[in-house]
Amino acid sequence: MPETPEMTLNAALFEWLLRMGDNTLILGHRVSEWCGHAPVLEEDIALANTALDLIGQTQLWLGLAGEVEGKGRSADNLAYLRDASAFRNVLLVERPNGDFGQTLMRQFLFDAWHLDMLKALRQSTDGRVADIAEKAQKEVAYHLERSADLVIRLGDGSQESHRRLQAALDDHWSYTGELFVGDEADEQVAKAGIAPAAETLQGSWSNTVGEVLQAATLTAPESSFSHKGGKRGIHTEHLGYILADMQFLQRAYPGATW
Amino acid sequence: MPETPEMTLNAALFEWLLRMGDNTLILGHRVSEWCGHAPVLEEDIALANTALDLIGQTQLWLGLAGEVEGKGRSADNLAYLRDASAFRNVLLVERPNGDFGQTLMRQFLFDAWHLDMLKALRQSTDGRVADIAEKAQKEVAYHLERSADLVIRLGDGSQESHRRLQAALDDHWSYTGELFVGDEADEQVAKAGIAPAAETLQGSWSNTVGEVLQAATLTAPESSFSHKGGKRGIHTEHLGYILADMQFLQRAYPGATW
Repeated sequence: MPETPEMTLNAALFEWLLRMGDNTLILGHRVSEWCGHAPVLEEDIALANTALDLIGQTQLWLGLAGEVEGKGRSADNLAYLRDASAFRNVLLVERPNGDFGQTLMRQFLFDAWHLDMLKALRQSTDGRVADIAEKAQKEVAYHLERSADLVIRLGDGSQESHRRLQAALDDHWSYTGELFVGDEADEQVAKAGIAPAAETLQGSWSNTVGEVLQAATLTAPESSFSHKGGKRGIHTEHLGYILADMQFLQRAYPGATW
Repeated sequence: MPETPEMTLNAALFEWLLRMGDNTLILGHRVSEWCGHAPVLEEDIALANTALDLIGQTQLWLGLAGEVEGKGRSADNLAYLRDASAFRNVLLVERPNGDFGQTLMRQFLFDAWHLDMLKALRQSTDGRVADIAEKAQKEVAYHLERSADLVIRLGDGSQESHRRLQAALDDHWSYTGELFVGDEADEQVAKAGIAPAAETLQGSWSNTVGEVLQAATLTAPESSFSHKGGKRGIHTEHLGYILADMQFLQRAYPGATW
């Protein structure tokens, strides 16, 4: 095989699959931190269900990533044995849980992107990607329905709930832009018809988010500044703590299958 | 209404419903402590699913308990606003998670009792109880299938896994007897045909557990000594820590529904 300065399509696809799987893995872990700590039984169940869906999707994305890489790494391997700099999730999903409003707003902003992405992926030229998207899209449609509904109810709720949701929106806003910035890997995968180019999802996301925020009487910040880096492995300090918590068992007892 | 020295049937039923709901609540919380910390993605999902089932059942049992009590307490109220001495779960379910073997053995010993109990409850003279049992029984049949299968695989597995499972069995054994000791509340509820008498479930449980332990090459301790107290509100120190963790949010922010 001749060496080229360009990334091979296979390497680009591996990179892109890590991004999909790491987004759901890290967000799933964050949400699971609520397990047993939600303020009401119903919410405890709803959050655990969301975490379960996301971890299930992680198995599929990282399983396919391992297959594409072709070095025999399993989904578990990729989840539990990589260091922070090898993770490719956007910074938004590693943001701390904060109060319930912050957890909810992070979920909503991500869900709105996630659903559009998965809908588009059902047309992927890669049948394996289309299959995962088909399954995940049903789950995520429900996540978005739920998070949008709660954002509206709490945003347009009491003075206190409005204040908290607005603070959460202000807090997370500058972490949303990264979802729509493509790099070489994204471009290669888009050119091959495997996934939409990152930028193409912004219009629809802005519409969805705009409508919900209006109904919630919330105002998006004017600033268009955006934190970036997660997709390239440059993470905030939060990811290190998540991995320490999540990977402890596998690191302490490698292979742990007694 | 003439005063009698006997507990009214309504009071006995309330007490009995708390026992059912508190068993699933406390075990569900214990299992949810694994969320995001299991050694493999698959097990993380399986444990979260078990926790979800148990918390869902808690909503039903404690919801009915509140209805029977007739003082306007909801399932959430009962879950989040009672002190340890008002909890009625058996001591077995508040046992610490320990390693995965201890979590698994606790689950198996409880599942074997739980399934028999629910099967019997489908014939309850109280239609509300029979309905909950009908739904829960399907979930718990799967819990038992899974925990029995794992006990056999790990008991009859490596030397290390055998050693850990036997230690877990030795550790939990003296907490199983409480499941089969009835008191006045149990007797009243049994006399009314609402639930089987506690003692009547022991034979079938011993058979199920005996068969699985044999296949797992594990040996039940000889001792028939049994710790008791949970059903009457006398708990180990572990319950206090569970409640501190579980109830923190509701206690810190009463009503928390901003």
